Formats: sequence, structure tokens, C-alpha cells
Amino acid sequence: MRLGDDEARARLAAHDHGVFCTVHADRGVDAVPCVYAVHDDRVGVPVDRVKPKASSRLQRVDNLTADPRATLLVEQWDAADWSRLWWVRAELRWEPDPSVDMTAALAAALVARYPQYRAEPEPFTRVLVLRIVGLTGWTATPPG
Amino acid sequence: MRLGDDEARARLAAHDHGVFCTVHADRGVDAVPCVYAVHDDRVGVPVDRVKPKASSRLQRVDNLTADPRATLLVEQWDAADWSRLWWVRAELRWEPDPSVDMTAALAAALVARYPQYRAEPEPFTRVLVLRIVGLTGWTATPPG
Repeated sequence: MRLGDDEARARLAAHDHGVFCTVHADRGVDAVPCVYAVHDDRVGVPVDRVKPKASSRLQRVDNLTADPRATLLVEQWDAADWSRLWWVRAELRWEPDPSVDMTAALAAALVARYPQYRAEPEPFTRVLVLRIVGLTGWTATPPG
Repeated sequence: MRLGDDEARARLAAHDHGVFCTVHADRGVDAVPCVYAVHDDRVGVPVDRVKPKASSRLQRVDNLTADPRATLLVEQWDAADWSRLWWVRAELRWEPDPSVDMTAALAAALVARYPQYRAEPEPFTRVLVLRIVGLTGWTATPPG
């Protein structure tokens, strides 16, 4: 069954990782796992400094520069019990020039959420800021 | 670090679920969790009969009819230990008219993999058959 907007937003804000999808001119879709934070109606996706995946990093930003549409899918998987499955999909628009305040709020939220980012003073090089323009959620079992 | 092709293929074949992405004319990307099976160089994604998400089902096929490019991302997530993270992304092309043998092999593989599909005689209405045209894999820690 479909999740209501408030429930979908709450699950998106509370979940700890997802799959971030952008449009690639040749491949159609690029998809990569990500961590993220939500602040107001924005999602922040960090571009990590430490991980050796430079090509993925650049590709993601190249894709968004060519086409600002993106999707973040978060889900709960349970191999043994499919009645526990749910997912939320956020339709996003990249903001290439976000406000300093919004970027700072999302960066602070990322550091607060992930202890891995508290181990060093500058854990990511950049926070991609994306506006939530649509939310869809589904659950195998009604909430509550 | 990048995973080699053989290692990426082995992890794709062994993993139990992923995120299936298709191209949507307006939204750019549609993404939905899925189960799947691999046979030779094809991925089979079932269209379930039992789950009440008719709109997602139809949308996926509509998207593939308009644009046969798709992406399947599988990943290992570990909130506490990011050194255990890995992912594999398969670039796919939908085959609207697959061979009967290939469809049967993928349907059999799905039933063999997922006990949920063994509880009833016709667990899914259709198996989407997609050819693997590219593989990319990444791991935080070298295999072996």
C-alpha cells in the first residue's frame, strides 16, 4: 500500500542510506549508494574526500550539471519476511548554487548522523544540495 | 577500489536484492527495489502478482517500452563499519521479446532463490528479461 506524504517524509529523514540516481546521456541512469541528510525540503548528499572512487564522484556532478533531475531511493529489505518491506522514493532537483546556510545545515546534519564523519575535520569536499519535488512511498504492511 | 569483472559478476549473481532503475521521460529516473536472478548474461526481474502496487508495475514496463536502458544496483551496507561497503552496478538493456528458454530459466532461478515464490503455483505474472551490457563494481576493502 502507498505511504502518506508525512509518513514517507519521516521515513526518508530517519533512514541512514539510499541509492542516488542521476541521468546519464548514454547509459540512461547512473546509480550509486549514498548517505544523506534531510533539512527542510532539501536533501544533502556528501561528496567524500576519503574514498578512492574519483570517477564516480565526478560522473555524478557531470550528470547533474547536464540534467539536474535526480532520484533517491531508500528501502527496508528483509530476506526472510517480505511483510516488513517498505521503500520511499524522493524525486529531486539539484541546486548548483545553494545558499550558504542550507549547505551548512546539511553538512552539520551529516556530521551529526554519521560518526564516520566526526573522525576528521573535513570529511567531505562538498555537499550536493537537492530540492525534494516529489515523494512516493510503499509499504507491504500498513504503518502503526 | 574497483572490482574486476569476474568478481563483480559473482557478487551480482550471489546477492539477493537490488534497486532497479529505468528512464522516465519527465522524472528522469524511476527507481524501485527488486529481487532478481542472473542466468548467463541476462538478469530476470519478476513482475509480482501479489503485491498491491499496480501503478509501479505498469510504470516500469511503460518506461522500458519507451527506453530499453535500465540499471540494477546491488550493494552491501554496514552502518557501523564502512570498510565492509561494496556495490555492483549492472547496465542493462530490456529485451521485449526474449526466448522462451531464457524466460523459463530465469523464472526457475527466481523460484529456486526465493522461498516466497515457492508458496504458490504462479508467483509472478511476468519476468522482465534484460541483457547485461556493462558491469561496474566498487569495494571499500580489496577482496580475498
